[in-house]
Amino acid sequence: MLHSQNIESHTLSVLVDNEPGVLARVVGLFSGRGYNIDSLTVSETEHQKHLSRITVVTTGTPRIIEQIKSQLGRLIPVRSVIDLTVMGPPLERELALIKVAGRGENRVEALRLADAFRATVIDATVEHFVFEITGRSNKIGQFIELMVPLGLVEVARTGVASIMRGKEAT
Amino acid sequence: MLHSQNIESHTLSVLVDNEPGVLARVVGLFSGRGYNIDSLTVSETEHQKHLSRITVVTTGTPRIIEQIKSQLGRLIPVRSVIDLTVMGPPLERELALIKVAGRGENRVEALRLADAFRATVIDATVEHFVFEITGRSNKIGQFIELMVPLGLVEVARTGVASIMRGKEAT
Repeated sequence: MLHSQNIESHTLSVLVDNEPGVLARVVGLFSGRGYNIDSLTVSETEHQKHLSRITVVTTGTPRIIEQIKSQLGRLIPVRSVIDLTVMGPPLERELALIKVAGRGENRVEALRLADAFRATVIDATVEHFVFEITGRSNKIGQFIELMVPLGLVEVARTGVASIMRGKEAT
Repeated sequence: MLHSQNIESHTLSVLVDNEPGVLARVVGLFSGRGYNIDSLTVSETEHQKHLSRITVVTTGTPRIIEQIKSQLGRLIPVRSVIDLTVMGPPLERELALIKVAGRGENRVEALRLADAFRATVIDATVEHFVFEITGRSNKIGQFIELMVPLGLVEVARTGVASIMRGKEAT
């Protein structure tokens, strides 16, 4: 018997009490049950210092995604779990710092591609650039792939920050 | 007897095997021993798909920072721990999505400040903006503080991505 395995990517916004160990519990839930974490970011909510927002991008079948949401919702320090993906395409942005070393034509080409991708140079010598780029994760992935043959040295990515469209709070 | 308590902020770049549970172990080390996590980001290293980079900004006395580095280094899936802060000021950037709702003069002022901070508008109606801003964490914090009286609705921050200056790998 065949089961359809529709693997979906969902972005979950998890509001938690800002207390010690809460990140460990959320991450532990994923690793303990073998759920994927494709991206994870944490931030204070700033105007409510006692709350933090954990944004997790995860993949799984619809059933697995429902399990994850239900189990997250039952964790003690979790205030709310919002599935941004089911509310329509959310605004998602990531930042990466990308170091590329090279001379001559490779260097010129790296700069040309950086212009096309609206990446900016934040550190440079005659032998290297560090580019800052922001955008959706697949755009950043494309830029990194293009840098590989041009002398990619190193990448630091932040993971995805996500927010609902429109004027309402998530 | 007085002990001097010099609390320092350090950015650690932790290279780990990309295997299930590694993030949980790293986060668990911090929460289990009560170490601070001011920011945490995770990313694949892209050109080496079997490795991930975890960037942690932590605060503590010099002795605590040394303990953290030493204990991280003894975790099984950790390949290397680099203290970017002791290598000279590292390149650090964060991204935030910031939703502000309002009309009239508040709206004009929000847009004016966004210009000054080089934030860009990625979603808007006549009643709200979503700004994308990148920079050092304190610059982003300042911008958020300025938005509070103008109708701040919501913030999603990525945490800090960090990379060493110069052409060498970290």
